[in-house]
Amino acid sequence: MGFSQRLMHAAALIAARLSDLLDHQVTAGAPARLVEAMRQGALGGGKRLRPFLMLECAQLFGVGAEAAVEAAAALECVHCYSLIHDDLPAMDDDDTRRGKPTVHKAFDEWTAILAGDALLTLAFELLASPQAHADPAVRTELIAALARASGPAGMAGGQSLDLEAEKLSLPEPPRLAHIERLQAMKTGALFGYACEAGAILGRSDAAERARLARFGARIGMAFQIADDLLDLEGDAARMGKATGKDEGKATFVAALGVHKARAQLGVLAAEAIALLAPFGTKADILREAVRFVVQRQS
Amino acid sequence: MGFSQRLMHAAALIAARLSDLLDHQVTAGAPARLVEAMRQGALGGGKRLRPFLMLECAQLFGVGAEAAVEAAAALECVHCYSLIHDDLPAMDDDDTRRGKPTVHKAFDEWTAILAGDALLTLAFELLASPQAHADPAVRTELIAALARASGPAGMAGGQSLDLEAEKLSLPEPPRLAHIERLQAMKTGALFGYACEAGAILGRSDAAERARLARFGARIGMAFQIADDLLDLEGDAARMGKATGKDEGKATFVAALGVHKARAQLGVLAAEAIALLAPFGTKADILREAVRFVVQRQS
Repeated sequence: MGFSQRLMHAAALIAARLSDLLDHQVTAGAPARLVEAMRQGALGGGKRLRPFLMLECAQLFGVGAEAAVEAAAALECVHCYSLIHDDLPAMDDDDTRRGKPTVHKAFDEWTAILAGDALLTLAFELLASPQAHADPAVRTELIAALARASGPAGMAGGQSLDLEAEKLSLPEPPRLAHIERLQAMKTGALFGYACEAGAILGRSDAAERARLARFGARIGMAFQIADDLLDLEGDAARMGKATGKDEGKATFVAALGVHKARAQLGVLAAEAIALLAPFGTKADILREAVRFVVQRQS
Repeated sequence: MGFSQRLMHAAALIAARLSDLLDHQVTAGAPARLVEAMRQGALGGGKRLRPFLMLECAQLFGVGAEAAVEAAAALECVHCYSLIHDDLPAMDDDDTRRGKPTVHKAFDEWTAILAGDALLTLAFELLASPQAHADPAVRTELIAALARASGPAGMAGGQSLDLEAEKLSLPEPPRLAHIERLQAMKTGALFGYACEAGAILGRSDAAERARLARFGARIGMAFQIADDLLDLEGDAARMGKATGKDEGKATFVAALGVHKARAQLGVLAAEAIALLAPFGTKADILREAVRFVVQRQS
């Protein structure tokens, strides 16, 4: 299978698992309306790039997709919760996502807040179950790392810094170092976790685990710069969401300008690929993933 | 120590631990403003009844407060996140809580949403750490049970059913069975977890664990009915929050009337106390806790 096929295959695997898991929540007693909102937030398409990276990194250590899919689905729950909350009127106030109404538009704000809360909570339920890994010590490592990556010193903290820069009257525009910190938390941390979790699932040594976390953080930063460039230059129809929304936001493109941001994208890609050297040809798909992120048009 | 002193002692222990943990988040890189909002939501007083119950249930199995405090602090993070989100304008729209401005009033809505998200995430980080328990298998049991109790088939689901009944035009007023299900999810599940987690920490057998979960669920339902009665009859100054807010809500008092609701409160208290029989005099403080919940005035 080539890269595109593997990516599509992983996306289908994750979507099928999420759909099953959400059906199971109804059986377990969750209200139908809440689960419908969770489905709207979790099953609306998407490239499933983070869980794909987890599956591919786990593969480096001989862990097959079936063994890694539960942890990958948990990660996607966290990503989807963050999109639902970020889209809320009090945050980015977006009406469409992947060409469909956002959850608070399709339902209402309270349902969207609760659907996000519920997906975040479900992620940890999935990781705590023996389905995620037979060894509870591995499961607690997955949980601790995901919570750090998505919590106050990770993704939630990054979103907070982002909104501070946008909504509060700061004395001066954010400096590049601040934007780097913000984006590393907001986007880099969860990508870093995606790759690190592959190493955790594969019981790699600490050095390989740290290397893959760094690889993921680089690819996450590259993804964010590509996203910022698409917001500036992209086409709303192809993106499936409103573009031109980043004006005044603390982005690399705003701080560096388009040309330097493109150059930075290249540097990050090169650093990411260099980090893969010890894995040899086993990491070829991950190398293609870096190129995919840099070149993506939607 | 008598009951009141033990309750105050536990509250002080939990507050001190939460304060330390939130300081540590700043050191770990979390934005100061977000952590301030988390502090506002987590350190604004409160009886800390759920973590108190966890500490006392753990004590039944010889687990001391120091050994149980991390898990109890995690539980309180989940309770406080739920209050922050429930108070939001899109949900219950409350301006004060424990006599202070709610988090979205003291800060703003996006900060409150993120502070809640961050506290929920932090709870799982705490439970995944060796501080919570030396054995990772015990930690994953704590995490799985907390996620079930607070997720879509637990607290978040109960809040969703509650808001459905309040905000959507339902064809008819909710029946008693529906209110019981709703309150069991919204309030009973987290109280049930509080007590069950004491048994998990104490590596009790499955029967004792299930018994304490049932005890906690009963005390939670009793707490909710007492809360509904206080909302109807209570004094806003003593409660530290607006009263009379439940009109039209799916409460036991609305469904049964005051007299039958009081009788139901008595039944739940008797059932809770009966469940404690096998623990003998070791459970005397828990018996007092039942009386405290039934008789509370604020």
